[in-house]
Amino acid sequence: MDQSFGALARTLKAQQAEALDAVGDVIVDHLSSSVPLIPEVARHLIGAGGKRLRPLMTLSAASLCGYEGEGHLQLAAAVELIHAATLLHDDVVDDSALRRGLRTANVVFGNKESVLVGDFLFARAFELMVKTGSLRVLDILSRASCTISEGEVLQLETQANPATSEEMYVEVVRAKTAALFSAATQSGAVIAAADPAQERALAEYGMNFGIAYQIVDDALDYEGTEDEIGKSVGDDFREGKMTLPLILALAQARNAEEKRFWHRVIAGGERTPDDFAQARRLIARDDLVGQSLAEAQRYAEAAADALSVLPPSPLRDTLEGLALSSFVRSA
Amino acid sequence: MDQSFGALARTLKAQQAEALDAVGDVIVDHLSSSVPLIPEVARHLIGAGGKRLRPLMTLSAASLCGYEGEGHLQLAAAVELIHAATLLHDDVVDDSALRRGLRTANVVFGNKESVLVGDFLFARAFELMVKTGSLRVLDILSRASCTISEGEVLQLETQANPATSEEMYVEVVRAKTAALFSAATQSGAVIAAADPAQERALAEYGMNFGIAYQIVDDALDYEGTEDEIGKSVGDDFREGKMTLPLILALAQARNAEEKRFWHRVIAGGERTPDDFAQARRLIARDDLVGQSLAEAQRYAEAAADALSVLPPSPLRDTLEGLALSSFVRSA
Repeated sequence: MDQSFGALARTLKAQQAEALDAVGDVIVDHLSSSVPLIPEVARHLIGAGGKRLRPLMTLSAASLCGYEGEGHLQLAAAVELIHAATLLHDDVVDDSALRRGLRTANVVFGNKESVLVGDFLFARAFELMVKTGSLRVLDILSRASCTISEGEVLQLETQANPATSEEMYVEVVRAKTAALFSAATQSGAVIAAADPAQERALAEYGMNFGIAYQIVDDALDYEGTEDEIGKSVGDDFREGKMTLPLILALAQARNAEEKRFWHRVIAGGERTPDDFAQARRLIARDDLVGQSLAEAQRYAEAAADALSVLPPSPLRDTLEGLALSSFVRSA
Repeated sequence: MDQSFGALARTLKAQQAEALDAVGDVIVDHLSSSVPLIPEVARHLIGAGGKRLRPLMTLSAASLCGYEGEGHLQLAAAVELIHAATLLHDDVVDDSALRRGLRTANVVFGNKESVLVGDFLFARAFELMVKTGSLRVLDILSRASCTISEGEVLQLETQANPATSEEMYVEVVRAKTAALFSAATQSGAVIAAADPAQERALAEYGMNFGIAYQIVDDALDYEGTEDEIGKSVGDDFREGKMTLPLILALAQARNAEEKRFWHRVIAGGERTPDDFAQARRLIARDDLVGQSLAEAQRYAEAAADALSVLPPSPLRDTLEGLALSSFVRSA
């Protein structure tokens, strides 16, 4: 049986197929607006697909905790809308041109439209959470939303900064990505009225899974092809984003010339395609993508371990497998 | 006694001085972040002052409804944070350079920083609302936040569009500005557990006051000086914003030449300082600012009327006076 990350993500989708469809309906309902451009921009992004990992986390957590109501559908939709809002703003902030294999909304519709529609989606997410009737869910997700923007600002500050440490990088990843995964799983537990130990375990799973997931995503920017990763290869490099392969490369440079190269391409404003090719060569030589994946493995294992307090089930197995396959290079 | 809008705004501040100070403390507490740039950007905007009209609306509404708790402080702070978030995003969307007499955050810190710190403030506002423990407050303000972004997108669509009608303009104003005033007053009533008639009256007051306020603000862009209005004069004109004086000018043009002028400067990408001077001349000749203020008057009077169901008090008088002075040109 195929135990790759992609295969397990599909298994998870299949295990939650009915609920996920219902979440899709909730989302479509809540994109409606008297201003037609809003659903148009939102559908461009949300309709482009994506793995729906975050809403799946919410649905799975609620399900693992024995939830039988329907509030998790609204909650999962809210989580996906928050994610979509951050993507719209991210692509403006990063000047990205490609996402999920399609031109980004900022390119198709404009930066201004992306900022405003992001705001709309964010507000709609909170409207949806109100409908769940749970103040704790609102508390968890409003805090996570704060943390996400803190992570984004911190990332902006580390950009093109050769002094960025591995700790700072993990801090950025924890805030900008893992906080939402953790809020997604924790709020799923909360809506299911899980006991505190289960709620904590699911929050832990989401946090550690999210960190692993982002480290892997960042590392593959130095190894994958455009087809594999669905976005322009080398985007992070061009923007001077201080992700783990770059931090390791600077720390492990073998001589003064290599050190100069890394300093120049990190701090310098211009990074040519030749620079990127050279960066990939050096990163491949020392297997820094592999070193990054090994770092991701620590978090992935912590995620899988956290699930042990939950009752065994096929769904728990899938979540565990998803974490443990996240850092494995696909064949 | 000075019954000008400015004087009455100061009276309102004085009547709510203690509460407003406490709101300031709540705001400062909630700007703190592990990422120092966030409070820096936020303070640049919020510290620049402003009339604090929106939090004053919340405090006043709660007070008029006999509220004696402290939740209105958090609520008023949340309202001001939502307002601040929209200002940060607005200034990015409008490429504004000056606000409240100071350089805008997007100019001082950058567009990316303004987008992300706006997101942070918005999320913090929801965190604060959760602390009030009132789901209805969260419902009202999340809906208002949706409406605000709808209004902003609609405004973007009417920009440089000579077909924009007065009705569309009022729709934009209602959504982008008045919805938050209305949510501010209504949620103040809700937290005070006001009866439905009082809650409705305060929502009405906020809505109509907000419409009048924005119509006046837009009209003065064709009459005031930079010192008077605290932002660059003619910004709306340069951006092709379809505000009431421009809509009236196009509708009331006296001959083909004037019509051509208006079409050219509205639809055309370039609007020179000479164009602005000519626009001001024509607008002054037909007193289109006066006509706009007369339109504002209708809403201001509806706002004042709405207050009649509330028990008489000096505070009610001030709110009534504030509405009724909003459309009067200062001497």
